[in-house]
Amino acid sequence: MSKHVVIVGAVALGPKVASRLMRCAPDTKITLLDRDRLISYGGCGIPYFVGGDVSEISELRKTMYHMERNESFFKNVKHFQVLTGQEVVSINRKDKSVVYRDVDSGQEASMDYDQLVLATGTTPVLPPLPGADLPGVFTVSNLHHAQAIKNKLAQGEIESAVVVGGGAIGLEMAEAFADLWGVETTVVEMMDHVLPAALGPDTAGLVHKQLEDNDVRVMCKTKVTEVVGDADTGVQAVRTSEGDIPCQAVIFSVGVRPSTKLAQDAGLTIGPFGGIAVNARLRTSDPNIYAGGDCIEQRHLISGENLIMPLGSLANRQGRVIANNIAGGNDQFPGVIGNFCVKVFDIGVARAGLTMAQAEQAGFDPEYALVVQPDRAHFYPTSNIMIMKLIADRSTRQVLGVEALGPNGDAVKARVDAVGALLPHRVRLDEISNLEVCYSPPFSLAMDIVNVAGNVLQNIIDGYNRPIFPQELLRVFPEQKGVVLDVRAPDQAQPGRDKYGDRWMNIPLEQVPDRISEVPADIPVYVYCNTGTRSYEVQRFLNGQGFDNVRGVQGSYAVMRDLDPEFDPRKDGEI
Amino acid sequence: MSKHVVIVGAVALGPKVASRLMRCAPDTKITLLDRDRLISYGGCGIPYFVGGDVSEISELRKTMYHMERNESFFKNVKHFQVLTGQEVVSINRKDKSVVYRDVDSGQEASMDYDQLVLATGTTPVLPPLPGADLPGVFTVSNLHHAQAIKNKLAQGEIESAVVVGGGAIGLEMAEAFADLWGVETTVVEMMDHVLPAALGPDTAGLVHKQLEDNDVRVMCKTKVTEVVGDADTGVQAVRTSEGDIPCQAVIFSVGVRPSTKLAQDAGLTIGPFGGIAVNARLRTSDPNIYAGGDCIEQRHLISGENLIMPLGSLANRQGRVIANNIAGGNDQFPGVIGNFCVKVFDIGVARAGLTMAQAEQAGFDPEYALVVQPDRAHFYPTSNIMIMKLIADRSTRQVLGVEALGPNGDAVKARVDAVGALLPHRVRLDEISNLEVCYSPPFSLAMDIVNVAGNVLQNIIDGYNRPIFPQELLRVFPEQKGVVLDVRAPDQAQPGRDKYGDRWMNIPLEQVPDRISEVPADIPVYVYCNTGTRSYEVQRFLNGQGFDNVRGVQGSYAVMRDLDPEFDPRKDGEI
Repeated sequence: MSKHVVIVGAVALGPKVASRLMRCAPDTKITLLDRDRLISYGGCGIPYFVGGDVSEISELRKTMYHMERNESFFKNVKHFQVLTGQEVVSINRKDKSVVYRDVDSGQEASMDYDQLVLATGTTPVLPPLPGADLPGVFTVSNLHHAQAIKNKLAQGEIESAVVVGGGAIGLEMAEAFADLWGVETTVVEMMDHVLPAALGPDTAGLVHKQLEDNDVRVMCKTKVTEVVGDADTGVQAVRTSEGDIPCQAVIFSVGVRPSTKLAQDAGLTIGPFGGIAVNARLRTSDPNIYAGGDCIEQRHLISGENLIMPLGSLANRQGRVIANNIAGGNDQFPGVIGNFCVKVFDIGVARAGLTMAQAEQAGFDPEYALVVQPDRAHFYPTSNIMIMKLIADRSTRQVLGVEALGPNGDAVKARVDAVGALLPHRVRLDEISNLEVCYSPPFSLAMDIVNVAGNVLQNIIDGYNRPIFPQELLRVFPEQKGVVLDVRAPDQAQPGRDKYGDRWMNIPLEQVPDRISEVPADIPVYVYCNTGTRSYEVQRFLNGQGFDNVRGVQGSYAVMRDLDPEFDPRKDGEI
Repeated sequence: MSKHVVIVGAVALGPKVASRLMRCAPDTKITLLDRDRLISYGGCGIPYFVGGDVSEISELRKTMYHMERNESFFKNVKHFQVLTGQEVVSINRKDKSVVYRDVDSGQEASMDYDQLVLATGTTPVLPPLPGADLPGVFTVSNLHHAQAIKNKLAQGEIESAVVVGGGAIGLEMAEAFADLWGVETTVVEMMDHVLPAALGPDTAGLVHKQLEDNDVRVMCKTKVTEVVGDADTGVQAVRTSEGDIPCQAVIFSVGVRPSTKLAQDAGLTIGPFGGIAVNARLRTSDPNIYAGGDCIEQRHLISGENLIMPLGSLANRQGRVIANNIAGGNDQFPGVIGNFCVKVFDIGVARAGLTMAQAEQAGFDPEYALVVQPDRAHFYPTSNIMIMKLIADRSTRQVLGVEALGPNGDAVKARVDAVGALLPHRVRLDEISNLEVCYSPPFSLAMDIVNVAGNVLQNIIDGYNRPIFPQELLRVFPEQKGVVLDVRAPDQAQPGRDKYGDRWMNIPLEQVPDRISEVPADIPVYVYCNTGTRSYEVQRFLNGQGFDNVRGVQGSYAVMRDLDPEFDPRKDGEI
């Protein structure tokens, strides 16, 4: 007799397990249950549906070949049974059966399984604040919410909106609101910068500027204390530690919680971070029960810590591993390194591995480089600036993380994915310096930004490059400490000279050897240019001439102009 | 006393060695000699200068901060001496000196060195054919050639041109001629497909189509035997094994030869492939002489073979290694994996590692997958098709190579660089299946094409996926062997049915279970769709129902429409 595999949850991992299993072991009987009627959708596409890039919500449920993934699709094309509107309410591990309830009739029934797969996903966190249940308060977790938000927008009911939580989904929703619908949008973030789990404060500062340039207001270090309104009119404002923000809609995107009640009630082990605990084969503490996707705890391959990482990409890959194992294989899912990307208006942002803060917390002694380079040959017409932060452990030189952003998101992703691919191999910095990437002027410089980032970070650790990072300079310069030595052409340096007088020196790069007597030896000198390249050149030259109190401003104008446009008041923006 | 480092050649590696060395060991005395007056240029940019993307040739000599890299730049900014128009004619290893000659006066002088660096680059191969010295015959190897070609174009002297050699430079030059200047351009390639060193015949076939779609004529398996013309009128035609091609200009881009005369005369070891032999520290057989860049032999990290790989990106990275070693370090350049990319009109093409042919030659037992997928979420507006070929060893499952192409070249490069980064680690296929890459709908699918390619290739090796590749189908189908089972919608299948009658069956995917009795069991069935995804689904289903003579057409219509537009006469092109 063929074995019966029961799968709970039919969004990403569930259908993947079933589809793969039917291809490998076509004798298997599979039943997939979901309490929702809308299943197997691309939840990550919701902001693009709200923002109009995707016009019909049904697009998020279609295959590449334009078939809607519903019960009959799975029956006729994938050859397994899906029962929708059926909520699994308990697992009887002794009998190997589940009890499920029809969400409309409330009627319960039970079903035996040989193997059970839990793909129960997550529940969005809705903080227990006064007013959090008012009409006009939304989370972004399924197609019903998506449709409700878009309906309200389309009916012109939202002039102002507040997005609580500056993570990826929050920023994507803010863009959707502001860009297509012209809604006055405010992002409120409790931490000191947006994308706090993905980026450090400097790279996040550049994202912040991108949001503001596109008329999204961003309030960091701000706590939401209440949603103001009443049941009739709905939301009227969000009350925060920085005052009230009037609005007609609130999106809470402050995180998600793995949906583990079913697992927990059945006595399966739950990990310290609240996800279902699984081994590398994605089996739970019961050998007949697998779990994967958003509801499990993942192992981070660099930090060694567990974490919750809800991503459709991981769910799909894990689905294959589970199916192979049920089919009798030994497939393993080793863990994650936290690859992440997001489009924020006109820029792409990506990272892999750990941020500086995460690296410190994991016990490393991290150091970083912040480099600016064109994404293609600088003489090629479509060349754009890219900014990259590379993080490594100071003593072992193990590469720990990378963050990058720029107008060409695919090119940003290219660099982060290449470095990211190496992270599980615990490579040292010299492997990044020598990393071979495809080179041709329309797609890269001869020295690609990844190689340069590797070199700069080695130079910093070796003591050749003596950096001052933009945020430190923004702190110390107003305290009257040191002078800026601007080595760009006089016209580019003039706005700084006009603003700061003698504290903003200008000696163009090529004149430095002849005018070395003008450089002060007794106070800190911050060498400054457009991207940090010339600064390093001059810093090394001055070091060679006995000047020790010289530091190069990492990223220089290319970073400063976005982090604090008032610091260097030059306005033309050209690099 | 400071040591004297003499560097021969000032294009890419030479200036890099000198610049880095001055930053690490500012006491060093460095002299850089080059027989040319135009130095330190981005030679890879020449086709873009000829094609008009770069308007001034001086752009190819400028830094990112727009300074021209000439003698005074290196003196004032980089702090070392460059002597141009000085050709080094011999090395006296015993005395540690070089003799150099002023190219204008012919006067010779000598110079002592403590350490010598050879950065002598390559010489373009000009085959010894009758007429190869006629006016109008060019190679593409320095700025003088570039300017001469562009002058002739600008003066309207070229109506037709022949590019001999279908490698990257040949294709880039063909695009430059045809696209900006409207020159009737023919590429003549001796091998059976373009980009023979980089791609297999199928992926190269798609590049071929791209060239033809943009009015570049491509003749493969064609030998050039003579350049026809006379000294007064210049080139009139290129004589080939397939007849004469009238033209006013000929570009020979049939490869380069490392410039090793100096090294050879000095008794340094030359490798079996004609490049200067170096160790991992890039030292020649003389411990006081280093060499790097295009003139050396590289070690291929997958095949273990030596090869010549002239790329500015490698030269720059090697320059740093040499400088660090001269400064007293132990830096190593491990070898290459052959990353490569090229823009061909509207598509980007990239590869890393070995082709099928190279893998076989290196003693592997390679198998491959050919997959087609959108480069971003299929519901995202700017989504485009990408095609990827992944190659692995059948028994060890070691990943050997990857080729990809598509309209979004940065996205193509992203995938190839990520897989490429792993190749030196000799990873197995499961690492590609589980490779974590950044995911967000504007930049990728939840199952990225790299993961899918890994899965498909595993499925092929495991026997789940029983492939027929497009080129095999094009061979066997006209021989009246087997039937195509088109599982797309009837309107998409109709052109095939009209052309082939009963040999082109149409059972839409979802009807297959009900109409299974129509599927022939006794002859080969080639399941066909738009990209190969549905074909696999149906192939597995039919296998499960006892049909063994069923194979899925890899890539299906998405590949066929470019490889042979007559095979499936459907013309709308939609996927």
